[in-house]
Amino acid sequence: VTTAFRLGELAAAVGGEVVGDPGFEARGIRDLEHAGPGDLSFLLRAAYLDRLEGSRAGALLLSPELARGLGGERPLLLAPDPGLALAHLLAIVHPEESPVPGVHPTAVVGEGCDVDPAAHLGPYVVVGDGSRVEAGASVRSHAVIGRRCRIGAGAVIHPHAVLYDRTEVGERAIVHAGVVLGADGFGYESRADGHHKVPQVGRTVVEEEVEIGALSAIDRATVEETRIGAGTKIDNLVQVGHNVTVGNRCILCGQAGIAGSARLGDGVVLAGQAGISGHLEVASGVRVAAKSAVLQEVGESRDVGGVPAIDLRRWKRQVAMLPRLGELARRLRALEKRLERMERREE
Amino acid sequence: VTTAFRLGELAAAVGGEVVGDPGFEARGIRDLEHAGPGDLSFLLRAAYLDRLEGSRAGALLLSPELARGLGGERPLLLAPDPGLALAHLLAIVHPEESPVPGVHPTAVVGEGCDVDPAAHLGPYVVVGDGSRVEAGASVRSHAVIGRRCRIGAGAVIHPHAVLYDRTEVGERAIVHAGVVLGADGFGYESRADGHHKVPQVGRTVVEEEVEIGALSAIDRATVEETRIGAGTKIDNLVQVGHNVTVGNRCILCGQAGIAGSARLGDGVVLAGQAGISGHLEVASGVRVAAKSAVLQEVGESRDVGGVPAIDLRRWKRQVAMLPRLGELARRLRALEKRLERMERREE
Amino acid sequence: VTTAFRLGELAAAVGGEVVGDPGFEARGIRDLEHAGPGDLSFLLRAAYLDRLEGSRAGALLLSPELARGLGGERPLLLAPDPGLALAHLLAIVHPEESPVPGVHPTAVVGEGCDVDPAAHLGPYVVVGDGSRVEAGASVRSHAVIGRRCRIGAGAVIHPHAVLYDRTEVGERAIVHAGVVLGADGFGYESRADGHHKVPQVGRTVVEEEVEIGALSAIDRATVEETRIGAGTKIDNLVQVGHNVTVGNRCILCGQAGIAGSARLGDGVVLAGQAGISGHLEVASGVRVAAKSAVLQEVGESRDVGGVPAIDLRRWKRQVAMLPRLGELARRLRALEKRLERMERREE
Repeated sequence: VTTAFRLGELAAAVGGEVVGDPGFEARGIRDLEHAGPGDLSFLLRAAYLDRLEGSRAGALLLSPELARGLGGERPLLLAPDPGLALAHLLAIVHPEESPVPGVHPTAVVGEGCDVDPAAHLGPYVVVGDGSRVEAGASVRSHAVIGRRCRIGAGAVIHPHAVLYDRTEVGERAIVHAGVVLGADGFGYESRADGHHKVPQVGRTVVEEEVEIGALSAIDRATVEETRIGAGTKIDNLVQVGHNVTVGNRCILCGQAGIAGSARLGDGVVLAGQAGISGHLEVASGVRVAAKSAVLQEVGESRDVGGVPAIDLRRWKRQVAMLPRLGELARRLRALEKRLERMERREE
Repeated sequence: VTTAFRLGELAAAVGGEVVGDPGFEARGIRDLEHAGPGDLSFLLRAAYLDRLEGSRAGALLLSPELARGLGGERPLLLAPDPGLALAHLLAIVHPEESPVPGVHPTAVVGEGCDVDPAAHLGPYVVVGDGSRVEAGASVRSHAVIGRRCRIGAGAVIHPHAVLYDRTEVGERAIVHAGVVLGADGFGYESRADGHHKVPQVGRTVVEEEVEIGALSAIDRATVEETRIGAGTKIDNLVQVGHNVTVGNRCILCGQAGIAGSARLGDGVVLAGQAGISGHLEVASGVRVAAKSAVLQEVGESRDVGGVPAIDLRRWKRQVAMLPRLGELARRLRALEKRLERMERREE
Repeated sequence: VTTAFRLGELAAAVGGEVVGDPGFEARGIRDLEHAGPGDLSFLLRAAYLDRLEGSRAGALLLSPELARGLGGERPLLLAPDPGLALAHLLAIVHPEESPVPGVHPTAVVGEGCDVDPAAHLGPYVVVGDGSRVEAGASVRSHAVIGRRCRIGAGAVIHPHAVLYDRTEVGERAIVHAGVVLGADGFGYESRADGHHKVPQVGRTVVEEEVEIGALSAIDRATVEETRIGAGTKIDNLVQVGHNVTVGNRCILCGQAGIAGSARLGDGVVLAGQAGISGHLEVASGVRVAAKSAVLQEVGESRDVGGVPAIDLRRWKRQVAMLPRLGELARRLRALEKRLERMERREE
């Protein structure tokens, strides 16, 4: 069964306005290259204007600014913030299939658990003793929830995620497949006879509306908490060490890593494969370039890059100098020769 | 039960030729250090010729070139391409134990699925509604297959792999343990009030004969497809962002990462821990050195390295200059002093 | 139920000594910021002395040296090695809840397995034919053990870990959630018609007292063994390629990677996101800085850093020179002008 959505209704849902036929029925949302005559497509950047040509899209979402000068061959949905509008429309036109509430007969639920009747536990889910799963939360196939954990209302735990004991996941958080929350922090006392394990008796707390990408790991603290602030978004294969605090609304891109006991403020952005050393502070608003390594405190909001990371513009200037090193060395050698000749003439 | 293989038969299987006793019976294939008198060993590079001394190997696979000058103490299997021959012989002498076709009683198969009778579903496998598992495919213990997925004929899905809804895996592809295919791409519209999730309604398509290493993640596209081309080989812990296209027969080594919407041509090689920025093109045949970061388009086949990645030879020259910086600075200082002295004398 | 521990008993357990009331009852161990009047806290470094002020901790663990000059307001537990003492005390005051021995009814155990009655197999564990699980070993929910594996006495395999066939895990080793041991090494013979898979018929061996962090992958060897030496500690998301040998008591930090056939001695330390190229030797005691890449043999114990990694002090000097490049270029240009003027005057 395919449902179709009238363009006028979609416009109303996002506070937009239709130019052309509001009765156009969108069966799907596709990009300009793949959209057919029954689809709504979108144009978010002037740079992609040339992709319009040849597109078979039946209707188009864009900003009033970009719409100027476009011919009237297809209905337009004008939205003041088309990026945000697209996010809303995708949720309407291509809704996620939510699982039915209830506990699958193969789920193993421990003693003293509090599973809300409006929560979903999928096949082969394991929930340890004393854990709570709140209303509307969905724990998908094979997820393993430890003892005395809390899964907040509306949170989604995808297949094969593992939460060690006492982990807390906030309301509407999304934890993707294979994520491991609350594993032992990497703590040892190293002596001549080897590395002695320091028991990690703290926990991991993930606040509300955090999203954690597939196969990321957030270790639990030595004695207190590793904490991910509300609204922070974490990509795949990201490592967060024990005792770390990540502020609210941060962005940690794929394969970024944060070593133990580092403290990130709010709105910090780590680009892909960036790293943060242990035991240091990164101020709110700092943005770290891809592949960079922050090896000392960054005390105020700014952009940094390089290994070790420095002010981003300075790093870029350094990088721009590197290709000139050979030339500088040649010029230096030439100067030395000229000076030598002059000195010889002087004698 | 150990099976033994006559050297003459093995030679015939790989188009090789025996020097010495074709009746030699190989019970296993071992390296030169560990092979015993009942084993076949192999010598693929002249650099390892000194390892022959002291080896107890009963027989030896190598090229006719390397065999020249070797004494007759053990039978030899001469193959024009001994590397490829070794691959074939390992499959013959140490065959993989294939699981028996059939669905394990603990597997949970959704409605409207099409599971070929010649496919294997292991213990605790979960398959969502409307999915298809083709002949000879093997889905191992605990793998979770979403709704409306396709597992091509002869493909192997190892334990704990997770395929989100609508993921497609081609014929004879191999997906290793813990791999996550089709998780939500990392897409948000960031506004003053936070990061708004852009629903990811596309899918991930893995073409035939792709192999994906343990714990790698390939996100699904925002609206269309993330696609891995036929014959591409991906190592462990590799990250592929949403909307990415990887061409045919690429090699992505361990912990490499590709950010969203990048497009790689055919035969691209990313060495270990290399990264590709989002929204850029990397031409067919490009090879990226270990730990390097491609931050802008690479328009033609060549080797690149560094952060940001540049022509590999240029990068190596730059690196070679770095240890000389201190010396250059000292020479510059000396020149300044000499020139100052001359200028003073001139006055 | 909360148990309390008398300070005098705790001191005796770690060979320490109490200053003040040995009858103080510690209900938990917390850090200085969070400890209450019923808790024992700890002070391991002089740098944190200022955190004492304002701490509500009821008692304090520290060295006799740090205790000098402290007022007598709370009982002190003086220990000659307070770091090690803390590790011991955490295990006493916050003991791990060990699972009860026995096989969960949902565990699927293959034919010819040897599971010790004093071992624990959790819900939905799968163990392949011919495997052995020794006394006191604990295989947690959903872990998948292949055929002919060995899990040593007292080892812990956390949820969702996967061991491919023939993997061996030593006594008291700890394998965290999502770890994959023994997946196919990344081996192909690349020819014009594509990449031909080299069957990986070796295995992975993890020796005693190794700990492996969440979501790390250690591939099995092509024909022999990939081996992790006794007492080595591996953090999360670490990649170890096929045929690698890691010595005893090494430390591999988060997201580090070791390419195929590399050989590390004993006590090697890889900091976060460091990488080691394939087919090379790294001597015992070598320490590699974060984000660095070892691209050639390191023949003796020393600290290295950079890409490619060189002597750490040399690398730091190079890095210190980089910000001066612009200045050097300007000084060089100035010299050229001055020299030119002089040469013109000479004419």
